[in-house]
Amino acid sequence: MGTLFFAMSGALAAAEHNEEHDWFGAGFIGFITAIGGGSLRDILLGSYPLVWIGDLMFLYVILIGIVLAGVFYNLLLKLRKTFLLFDTLGISLFTVLGTEKALRFGISAEVAAMMGMFTAVMGGVIRDTLINEIPVIFRKEIYASACLLGAAVYLLLSKLQVERDICFLIAVLVIVLVRILVVKYHISLPKFKRK
Amino acid sequence: MGTLFFAMSGALAAAEHNEEHDWFGAGFIGFITAIGGGSLRDILLGSYPLVWIGDLMFLYVILIGIVLAGVFYNLLLKLRKTFLLFDTLGISLFTVLGTEKALRFGISAEVAAMMGMFTAVMGGVIRDTLINEIPVIFRKEIYASACLLGAAVYLLLSKLQVERDICFLIAVLVIVLVRILVVKYHISLPKFKRK
Amino acid sequence: MGTLFFAMSGALAAAEHNEEHDWFGAGFIGFITAIGGGSLRDILLGSYPLVWIGDLMFLYVILIGIVLAGVFYNLLLKLRKTFLLFDTLGISLFTVLGTEKALRFGISAEVAAMMGMFTAVMGGVIRDTLINEIPVIFRKEIYASACLLGAAVYLLLSKLQVERDICFLIAVLVIVLVRILVVKYHISLPKFKRK
Repeated sequence: MGTLFFAMSGALAAAEHNEEHDWFGAGFIGFITAIGGGSLRDILLGSYPLVWIGDLMFLYVILIGIVLAGVFYNLLLKLRKTFLLFDTLGISLFTVLGTEKALRFGISAEVAAMMGMFTAVMGGVIRDTLINEIPVIFRKEIYASACLLGAAVYLLLSKLQVERDICFLIAVLVIVLVRILVVKYHISLPKFKRK
Repeated sequence: MGTLFFAMSGALAAAEHNEEHDWFGAGFIGFITAIGGGSLRDILLGSYPLVWIGDLMFLYVILIGIVLAGVFYNLLLKLRKTFLLFDTLGISLFTVLGTEKALRFGISAEVAAMMGMFTAVMGGVIRDTLINEIPVIFRKEIYASACLLGAAVYLLLSKLQVERDICFLIAVLVIVLVRILVVKYHISLPKFKRK
Repeated sequence: MGTLFFAMSGALAAAEHNEEHDWFGAGFIGFITAIGGGSLRDILLGSYPLVWIGDLMFLYVILIGIVLAGVFYNLLLKLRKTFLLFDTLGISLFTVLGTEKALRFGISAEVAAMMGMFTAVMGGVIRDTLINEIPVIFRKEIYASACLLGAAVYLLLSKLQVERDICFLIAVLVIVLVRILVVKYHISLPKFKRK
């Protein structure tokens, strides 16, 4: 489901950025957005085969996402708010699943949290780099940092022997909640450069 | 030969994009263009060592390509049409060879076709990202999609037990033909965004 | 130490490029700058686990670098010249260490020199691509080429059976010296495109 949504959001972002994108171009960008984060994580970990190479289902889910995005283009742009919720659910799930996968490689919790965050946000970073925009995570309020926080919560609860499903749920909730509060109240982190 | 040409086209594109590029900068971009697509394919497949790391010949072929591009710079820019043909031959060969290599890793035909296309076009995508342009595959008419079609033709004929050399030849011809027709008649895919 | 410096320079470059970067954004870019070159080298070589994934120390050194860069932001910008020296020391060390690591994989000297250069400069290339600038190595005078020269010197001396520590020292000195001369006398390589 996260994959489906990411493919849709990638294709939409491409089409919005440049009206001239044809179906192939928008689809290509949707594809990269959907697999980018997970692929980067797997390459960094040396985990082969990559998920979408080993399991054909991903390719078809992405294809469906792209077609849906193309067919319901105008409708989807109107549903911005629903969209935001989907995006938030998408990054929450990707973060926790990515963190869990990384842990299975016997790496430290700190690095696992980064891998979870990468899984969630790097697809979008690659997408934005390809369409020549400043990546979204540097433009948006608290986004990747919310993922990192969620991953940290998951790892902390895990260490406290909390059951896996509960860790999972709480971590996802934390990310979703932080994102909703951030968007609603325009919260942002302190600037790096002092005025 | 595909590698030689890609190195030349990369160095030329770099120099055209920015007059200030020195030999090293243009050569660096030529190098990345030549090895980018194949390297990405091999990294995604987990196929080590990468072709150009295992076989020194590639490095020297690329070097020759860059020197040729520099020495015959003005001549080559005049020969745009010949150039286009070389580019088309380059992507055709890379597509089919990339698809064949991917198949040897026991992956599905669908993913193999994508790998063939990646081999052909991703060197150019990385080149364009580095010189800060919208990647060529999103600007040019039917380009990467022609590669995907060629790969599909190859895989279909292969499945029908057609001899390998004939599959190879037909797939290359399909890509070349599609590209020639597309450029000649300015054919393009339907836009993703409806007006 | 090279890692520490690269993290600082990455965070500073990010903050200078765009005043709006928050701590997380600048830190993220600092992190990528610090690990980018080495990670790319390890992925190209198929060397797992990546250095910073296997050894948690790197993550903390990077964190310290980012915090230092943030706290002493104004001071550091005034110390431009010291900064340049640090950068030069950083790329020198990274080049030679990268070359040595590549050699351990039994690859040819030519490819090992390229890997050394990649280790030194690709973190900066990725950083510049992310913040949407033309990569520094295509803007700066003789930079990556100095690294390549230093790697060549190292490999040559190594072949002549010179002791490792002396090879190391001379190669680092060559890079530092070339960079200092280049910056002082504004030396540049010949342009690729003839006027």
